[in-house]
Amino acid sequence: MKTVYSPLHHRRTAVSELDGGVLIPPHENPNRAETILARVKDQQLGEVLPPESHGLAPIRRIHSDRYIEFLEHCWRDWQAEGKPGEAIPAVWSGRGMRERLPKDIDGRLGFYSFAAETSITDGTWEAARAAVDVALTAQALVAGGERAAFALCRPPGHHAAEELFGGYCFFNNAGIAAQAFLDQGAKRVAILDVDFHHGNGTQSIFYQRSDVLTLSLHGDPDLVFPHFLGFEDETGEGDGEGYNLNITYPPNTPFEVWREGLETACQRIVDYAPDALIIALGVDTFEEDPISFFKLKSSDYLTLGQRLAELGLPTLFTMEGGYDVDAIGVNVVNVLKGFEG
Amino acid sequence: MKTVYSPLHHRRTAVSELDGGVLIPPHENPNRAETILARVKDQQLGEVLPPESHGLAPIRRIHSDRYIEFLEHCWRDWQAEGKPGEAIPAVWSGRGMRERLPKDIDGRLGFYSFAAETSITDGTWEAARAAVDVALTAQALVAGGERAAFALCRPPGHHAAEELFGGYCFFNNAGIAAQAFLDQGAKRVAILDVDFHHGNGTQSIFYQRSDVLTLSLHGDPDLVFPHFLGFEDETGEGDGEGYNLNITYPPNTPFEVWREGLETACQRIVDYAPDALIIALGVDTFEEDPISFFKLKSSDYLTLGQRLAELGLPTLFTMEGGYDVDAIGVNVVNVLKGFEG
Repeated sequence: MKTVYSPLHHRRTAVSELDGGVLIPPHENPNRAETILARVKDQQLGEVLPPESHGLAPIRRIHSDRYIEFLEHCWRDWQAEGKPGEAIPAVWSGRGMRERLPKDIDGRLGFYSFAAETSITDGTWEAARAAVDVALTAQALVAGGERAAFALCRPPGHHAAEELFGGYCFFNNAGIAAQAFLDQGAKRVAILDVDFHHGNGTQSIFYQRSDVLTLSLHGDPDLVFPHFLGFEDETGEGDGEGYNLNITYPPNTPFEVWREGLETACQRIVDYAPDALIIALGVDTFEEDPISFFKLKSSDYLTLGQRLAELGLPTLFTMEGGYDVDAIGVNVVNVLKGFEG
Repeated sequence: MKTVYSPLHHRRTAVSELDGGVLIPPHENPNRAETILARVKDQQLGEVLPPESHGLAPIRRIHSDRYIEFLEHCWRDWQAEGKPGEAIPAVWSGRGMRERLPKDIDGRLGFYSFAAETSITDGTWEAARAAVDVALTAQALVAGGERAAFALCRPPGHHAAEELFGGYCFFNNAGIAAQAFLDQGAKRVAILDVDFHHGNGTQSIFYQRSDVLTLSLHGDPDLVFPHFLGFEDETGEGDGEGYNLNITYPPNTPFEVWREGLETACQRIVDYAPDALIIALGVDTFEEDPISFFKLKSSDYLTLGQRLAELGLPTLFTMEGGYDVDAIGVNVVNVLKGFEG
């Protein structure tokens, strides 16, 4: 399996994550991608390719022009105000307040976000753009006939909605790739999100559509991020009714229980018969993950990859979460090796 | 004029305010109240009284039971999770997400807030309760026949809505006092908010009611906090249509311009003919205020007090914002002395 990787992810070097009432070094850091890349090479998974530039057009299919413009200029506008730290939202439209775009940078930050752990910094724009190019380049490999490809995206994307950043995500890499499949002729695409956290952005983007089936297995949002989306009663709306599936789990869920939901999701994918499958691949389901609560073991990721391969679909893997940096390379590559068989 | 003051405000000693992407010592700190108290005594404004306990019943007239319970136990629940810092919301219901109350403390913090500059800490509950008692004790003085009284509330209240904290506010002291006037027989109460920031909580609480006229003069929310409420097209809803007035101003507004809006507001109050008037008294309109952008001078506060006195109404002053601590005592007491004539 080929891997697409860009060193531009290093441009995303935030130093502040608001967590537990203090600012800490972000869990989502450059070492994550480098550890995965090293393991990909060590295990000789396959060729590692640089991304090709795809421009903004594919991004505009998913994200609004004004949101893209905001991301591009946020750091400049923040700096122009003389702010001492990284750009972190501190006020938002609470319940009963207006969802109206304010003019100043503090207001715009709150308007375009749903979480404060994710700062915007110098280089965030370039890294987020590169992650999209990584996803689209890998998508092109699959569209071109490869059985599968691995988009080593960083920053990740599944929490980003049409006009919202948060959860370390800015552009929805998987969603943009799904739209690219459709725009190139696919009739149906499925996105299966196996990250520990609900793929709220992906769900939101396709919630009223039937041409993209979204499925997510994740920690109960009553207990964990993103808290305000991802419940099992969210099944889609309008044309999208029946085309969103959420399966939630309590703390300490082991693989034997988690895989039951995987089986349900796989069966739904088979029924849907998509032209392509996208796996939003997070490995924060790992038992040692510092911010999650499932109990998957490294060997379980081989089994996961094997099960996904049995679907027999052209498959694009986009990298999402996973914060035990020591183990992230082993766990991610286990999924991919399990898939390759 | 009598002042009601409680030393319990000292229980509100947060150390963290998220501002400009860094955590700084809060602008809203105990020295504010102490500086005002010292000036009240120095200028012999009148007797300083302790508050009487009013219990939770008057608070429940404005805030929901579940919100009150949250504020009471937030710090305990936050500590139980082993969080290292003060309780600061870091995830909320972004646009398109669900306004559903999650179970865990991170989710509940986001549900009940609209801003991250305001942490909840040990003692916040006790101080916020005491501030309500201060407001209600001063309200009782006015209801009992005093021409006016000064509630030296800390923490302030005008940003707190039925179920939202933020902007340094937890309980809406002025709103609770207005309801007390009504519950004691008043037919109409007006709340005039002269703080630099829009009184979004007060507006929200009474937005669909005609028995409380809410008026606020403040910095344009397109440019300053609270960003998502306080525009001039917000005039009330349903029974409350026509009973909310917002007057907004651009940066560097001097008193000569600000007082034109004050005149409009005063005329509206005269037309409304309330049984009592509450002044949500912030002095962050001051030219040296560190987080605001109006240009009022200390002598202007005497003029403001004189104009309010001309309304000839039983008047309760509740303390709101003002962050130039050196000047806050002079400016606040100037309003009160101007009123006394």
